[in-house]
Amino acid sequence: MTAMAFEYPDEIRQLRDGVEDFLRVEVIRRHEVHHELLENPHRKYTPEGRYVPEVLRLIGEVRQAAARAGYYSMCVPETLGGQGLGHLAWFAVWERIFQVCSAQYWLGEFAVAHWAFGPSVVLSHLTPEAQERHLPGLMAGETSMCFGMSEPDAGSDAMMMRSRAEPDGDGWRLYGRKMWTTNGPYADYCMVFAITDPVAAAARKGGVSAFLVPTTAQGVAVEKVIRVWGGAGGPEAELSFDGVRIEPYQLVGPLHKGFSIAMKGVNLGRLYNCARAVGYSRWALKRAFEYIPQRHTFGHPISEYQGVTFPLADSATKVHAAYLMALNAAQLLDAGVPTRMELSMSKLFATQIGVEALDRVMQAHGGMGMANEMHLTEAYALLRMVNIADGSNEILQRTIVKEILDGNVDAL
Amino acid sequence: MTAMAFEYPDEIRQLRDGVEDFLRVEVIRRHEVHHELLENPHRKYTPEGRYVPEVLRLIGEVRQAAARAGYYSMCVPETLGGQGLGHLAWFAVWERIFQVCSAQYWLGEFAVAHWAFGPSVVLSHLTPEAQERHLPGLMAGETSMCFGMSEPDAGSDAMMMRSRAEPDGDGWRLYGRKMWTTNGPYADYCMVFAITDPVAAAARKGGVSAFLVPTTAQGVAVEKVIRVWGGAGGPEAELSFDGVRIEPYQLVGPLHKGFSIAMKGVNLGRLYNCARAVGYSRWALKRAFEYIPQRHTFGHPISEYQGVTFPLADSATKVHAAYLMALNAAQLLDAGVPTRMELSMSKLFATQIGVEALDRVMQAHGGMGMANEMHLTEAYALLRMVNIADGSNEILQRTIVKEILDGNVDAL
Amino acid sequence: MTAMAFEYPDEIRQLRDGVEDFLRVEVIRRHEVHHELLENPHRKYTPEGRYVPEVLRLIGEVRQAAARAGYYSMCVPETLGGQGLGHLAWFAVWERIFQVCSAQYWLGEFAVAHWAFGPSVVLSHLTPEAQERHLPGLMAGETSMCFGMSEPDAGSDAMMMRSRAEPDGDGWRLYGRKMWTTNGPYADYCMVFAITDPVAAAARKGGVSAFLVPTTAQGVAVEKVIRVWGGAGGPEAELSFDGVRIEPYQLVGPLHKGFSIAMKGVNLGRLYNCARAVGYSRWALKRAFEYIPQRHTFGHPISEYQGVTFPLADSATKVHAAYLMALNAAQLLDAGVPTRMELSMSKLFATQIGVEALDRVMQAHGGMGMANEMHLTEAYALLRMVNIADGSNEILQRTIVKEILDGNVDAL
Amino acid sequence: MTAMAFEYPDEIRQLRDGVEDFLRVEVIRRHEVHHELLENPHRKYTPEGRYVPEVLRLIGEVRQAAARAGYYSMCVPETLGGQGLGHLAWFAVWERIFQVCSAQYWLGEFAVAHWAFGPSVVLSHLTPEAQERHLPGLMAGETSMCFGMSEPDAGSDAMMMRSRAEPDGDGWRLYGRKMWTTNGPYADYCMVFAITDPVAAAARKGGVSAFLVPTTAQGVAVEKVIRVWGGAGGPEAELSFDGVRIEPYQLVGPLHKGFSIAMKGVNLGRLYNCARAVGYSRWALKRAFEYIPQRHTFGHPISEYQGVTFPLADSATKVHAAYLMALNAAQLLDAGVPTRMELSMSKLFATQIGVEALDRVMQAHGGMGMANEMHLTEAYALLRMVNIADGSNEILQRTIVKEILDGNVDAL
Repeated sequence: MTAMAFEYPDEIRQLRDGVEDFLRVEVIRRHEVHHELLENPHRKYTPEGRYVPEVLRLIGEVRQAAARAGYYSMCVPETLGGQGLGHLAWFAVWERIFQVCSAQYWLGEFAVAHWAFGPSVVLSHLTPEAQERHLPGLMAGETSMCFGMSEPDAGSDAMMMRSRAEPDGDGWRLYGRKMWTTNGPYADYCMVFAITDPVAAAARKGGVSAFLVPTTAQGVAVEKVIRVWGGAGGPEAELSFDGVRIEPYQLVGPLHKGFSIAMKGVNLGRLYNCARAVGYSRWALKRAFEYIPQRHTFGHPISEYQGVTFPLADSATKVHAAYLMALNAAQLLDAGVPTRMELSMSKLFATQIGVEALDRVMQAHGGMGMANEMHLTEAYALLRMVNIADGSNEILQRTIVKEILDGNVDAL
Repeated sequence: MTAMAFEYPDEIRQLRDGVEDFLRVEVIRRHEVHHELLENPHRKYTPEGRYVPEVLRLIGEVRQAAARAGYYSMCVPETLGGQGLGHLAWFAVWERIFQVCSAQYWLGEFAVAHWAFGPSVVLSHLTPEAQERHLPGLMAGETSMCFGMSEPDAGSDAMMMRSRAEPDGDGWRLYGRKMWTTNGPYADYCMVFAITDPVAAAARKGGVSAFLVPTTAQGVAVEKVIRVWGGAGGPEAELSFDGVRIEPYQLVGPLHKGFSIAMKGVNLGRLYNCARAVGYSRWALKRAFEYIPQRHTFGHPISEYQGVTFPLADSATKVHAAYLMALNAAQLLDAGVPTRMELSMSKLFATQIGVEALDRVMQAHGGMGMANEMHLTEAYALLRMVNIADGSNEILQRTIVKEILDGNVDAL
Repeated sequence: MTAMAFEYPDEIRQLRDGVEDFLRVEVIRRHEVHHELLENPHRKYTPEGRYVPEVLRLIGEVRQAAARAGYYSMCVPETLGGQGLGHLAWFAVWERIFQVCSAQYWLGEFAVAHWAFGPSVVLSHLTPEAQERHLPGLMAGETSMCFGMSEPDAGSDAMMMRSRAEPDGDGWRLYGRKMWTTNGPYADYCMVFAITDPVAAAARKGGVSAFLVPTTAQGVAVEKVIRVWGGAGGPEAELSFDGVRIEPYQLVGPLHKGFSIAMKGVNLGRLYNCARAVGYSRWALKRAFEYIPQRHTFGHPISEYQGVTFPLADSATKVHAAYLMALNAAQLLDAGVPTRMELSMSKLFATQIGVEALDRVMQAHGGMGMANEMHLTEAYALLRMVNIADGSNEILQRTIVKEILDGNVDAL
Repeated sequence: MTAMAFEYPDEIRQLRDGVEDFLRVEVIRRHEVHHELLENPHRKYTPEGRYVPEVLRLIGEVRQAAARAGYYSMCVPETLGGQGLGHLAWFAVWERIFQVCSAQYWLGEFAVAHWAFGPSVVLSHLTPEAQERHLPGLMAGETSMCFGMSEPDAGSDAMMMRSRAEPDGDGWRLYGRKMWTTNGPYADYCMVFAITDPVAAAARKGGVSAFLVPTTAQGVAVEKVIRVWGGAGGPEAELSFDGVRIEPYQLVGPLHKGFSIAMKGVNLGRLYNCARAVGYSRWALKRAFEYIPQRHTFGHPISEYQGVTFPLADSATKVHAAYLMALNAAQLLDAGVPTRMELSMSKLFATQIGVEALDRVMQAHGGMGMANEMHLTEAYALLRMVNIADGSNEILQRTIVKEILDGNVDAL
């Protein structure tokens, strides 16, 4: 029995269950074996904040096992060698990953290629030479990439970019700095966005191009790992490009039209974050509802106190809503109809009510809710950041307002 | 194009559009013709707070036209002479009625028989004699009824009932008072719930029976119209029953098991209120988004101020969610699967975010948002009351908590 | 014992207690005697929505009794014949009036002259001739006035005014319409604001003048009573001025500088509304905390359910905060220091948390919370409107933002 | 000029300014010199999560410098050698410390002795022998202590304690475990609460005693550092006591009446956390209001977007309220009147609106708001935990409800 009138197609259900089995064998077991390594920030990171080599080895193992099992590239177009599945499958699988792994078994996030770190539809725009050189390793999970879009003074308004690629013979020389390049310290390639036509860029009419740059190239440097939420390290980095030589084959998509490339990944990214919000929240709420009948204060289980239970019931209600919204958006995307507003609403709502749900589950657990070993605060921090990343709440609200004022009122 | 991946079946879509045509011809036109009568509280109500006869005549006209058009009894079982449509149709039609009529063209609420005021599945439990006597008039919209459930000191906890039916020959004598009997001042019949087995009732094991009582019977009185939200009158009444003789044929359903009858209507009632919340909210948000580009302050249309638009975008997002939740619950009900939690969540969420949406639309309109002529405050008051009626927010949260603690965690 | 470290000076405490005695004798007793007249909308208002003459007579009686007792003009400057008390006294007395009378004994609002309806510092700007003619009646509570500021298309942005006073010999001819003129249907005078220098007005550099206009003058008409919140009548009106002759002595304050006059009343008006919010909220919360131990559901008093009590505790906390904020602002005003931000914060916070408190008290009372006889919804509607009147929430937030950006960060 | 009508007495203002000078010289300078040590989690903590010795040395230096300057023991009773200042001074100084140091210059927290880690009124209950042995070191900031109250399964309901002290000759043997002993890994002494009369304890009638135990005693162990909010270490620990010998002179206060000792610190602790909430919030809001005029998106400074500014204005308003509430509670405490409700309200409100303010300031900063270098997330995490510590929000709400139901309605 399900609480959704909607039923996933059989093949998606089987896929999702297959991924869950994979997680238990390849991910959770690794976390159990390497518990101290993966839980103790001092062991997990170098003093500079990078994952230690042993952690990177485990990540590679999961990625490659997932590639062998066919999960890693499940939503990569068939023309690139993937399974070509759609948005509904993408949501279903990621929601399950986040629900099963939560923030605790975080290696699970490498079971499927994220559009910004591994192969995806975005790579359709690589030149044939670039595909030949780089695609096999990316598809096999042996290499990974990152997205060089944000800059120190430019967040959601990508037009404020300062990086530039200057003509240099048949290619370019790349100069600039990129912030918030997730996976930046570990990636083999960076897809860098830079101004190639300053006049068009200033007029907000294109002028930005995309390039795939090996991070081993001369002039590429990881300036620093950006530590967040008090952590000792992680995947966020600031990268610099100082006169990096770009060959013609490294151009991605049409010259001066690099933004359209990035947009390809945005839908996948927003839906992925809906899945994170719903998955984390369901995981957390289940823990809370298991815990509260067992915990006693003043002679009663705290499940008898409405001050404890009503906020949880409210969050359960909202998570139910967020799930339905994401399912709806995923189906619309697969149907090929305009979904900008519905997906914006879905991501906005899911990530807001998700942090609220995690916060309430923490509170229901008392002090232990804040302890690392519960992993609630990790999930909270990750989800809180998604209220800024991939379209901040404010950007999404702007989008919704604009859509409605422009006449898209059906979703009301 | 629709923002819902879900599409209504053709027959429901046609039905809904047919009802909309009906509303324009039979309802909105009447409001235009009788504008002063229906808008001016002084004209609409008697000094005692009842609708004046001319208003009652208009209500009857709409009911009977709807009966002739086949809309009035659309969800009444075919065995009773209705069309036997399900919950999805019920929701679709009511949502449209509330969206088109808002609180302004309130005669629209008589286009379909509400389970408590007219024919519905509940009447399947009437005795053959009662059906023969009363059903034809109710089905034709010539007569109406009300539900005598709540009492002065018993709200959501129906077990605190004091009304009793004492054996009297082959029938009973009914004593008691009923509060919040909507349509009470105007109904031809009241379905009264009263204790028939005090021992069982005290033990919360049944003991309550239902009776259909003509309001013209000796001993029945409308004690007063209960005026709410500052209004000069309305449909809420306190009724008293002082030794009213009940014949055997007036018993509804099995003796001592009257509550199960009432439960039949609860799902319909909650879904109806989801429709009210979604319909009113969509109506109001559309008005707001039409208004704000035209209204200027400080040299700009207020649609340029995020302090105005972001709250509206947030409400649009939540209304989208509420719509999906109600659709989901309606489909589950039609599938015959347990839906207690999903429907509780749907009603809880929809009625909460609905009052918030109406409140924000008022605020966006400035002072005019509070003026009677906008009808926003009427919609607000009606919807605000539904946060108490038909399962108060607190009762629904209790239900959700209980369901989850009992193991129903799929809807999470 | 008090929960405030701050103690009112003795004279203010005595004044406040004196006013309370006055209310019991002159106000509450009148409500008891004229219960049906004052409670039944059908009796209270004419079909056009005006108070019936008997209600107007009662209002006059209260006003005049208050004038005789010395309360009516307590904050009117001594130069005008008043007691010259300050903002702290103003707040203390109004807070007590609203707490004791709530929305039920609304004649209490005439115990002290509101700056817009009766004598206040604003009248210092009348010409000597106008003072001689009109002040005695206003001070005695025999006559009243209204403020003609808002217009149909101009709310918080007073610069969008269209009313104009055209030179006409030694005086002017006044043309225009005014909305939301509270007390408009009953006032003897209207202080009208109109453009006298269109060039300056267009440049937002003054150009608006104020005039005191008898409502019996040729060309003045009450276009309609504006009914709000579903009510059958009330004090709000739209007035029109069609070529009304203005004599020189009717000018109030300097020509083209009328706005400065209005500003005199703004501080009093905002503080008065803080008092309304705090007073109503305390009244309502006390009723709720008396009620919940007596009301039982599911075998327990609802005072044992945290779902009921925690929201009330939260509101009690916020009302405590709102009280302290208003006390602070009143003292700052009396000290003559800039208080724009603190008073904006105080009014913004108090009126927001006040409607929340009233809403929660309604919910705690179940259905009865919405019934007219509880007077909670009346208080709610009045306070909800104050979230727009006297500086809407959005205007106040703009003010706060501007103050802080301009460097006023102490209040942080 | 101040936004508070209330003015601190001169001596408190001078003290507060003196502390600020101290912070600049003794705290902020140390942070600048030891930047990498204090900012990099890898350097700051050992692999087990303890502060490295160099950090402990810096803490000791600050404590001792503060002791020499007379700030450290400012609120310690004069009978113990302190300055004997009251609650208003305590709040004023801590609010300034938190505002100046934020979560960044955290050594500032050692400028004044916190009641649980250093000398305070609580130590009045030490036996003369214990005072002689331990007080000099504590007063000089050379030694520190911790509070052993919470246990693994007992949070806010202290009655669920399992630790026990069994008679052993003229003294006791102590067995048990204590959680959330802040400063536990570094303290020289632990004030441990344990059951000494099991019958009385079971009946919730006392039966718990307090003992001052050197952490070097045989049988005392730091079981683990409790890492929270994803951090690599910190001050929270689980301690175990396995048959630790207690001498008679180690008893604190009367036998079986240990809880009354703990209560002495509760008021100080709650007020301290009000100061933390207000201080952090003011610091953060000031940073936000400095940042937003400089940050541009879509061609405008984000200070022009109400979606950015209105939430900040709302938080500024609430922080203003929280400040007034804490000032009021501090003055009431100094006046010796019952303040349980007012202080509960103050702490509840301040810590709730404080996390909201920090969250909004993060959001206004975009991604950088989450970066360690901004220290906003550290402040957030610390303040979020205080919504559980020192009386969780739920406990405080219970207290407020109980107070009001018991008749304390003045604070309404």
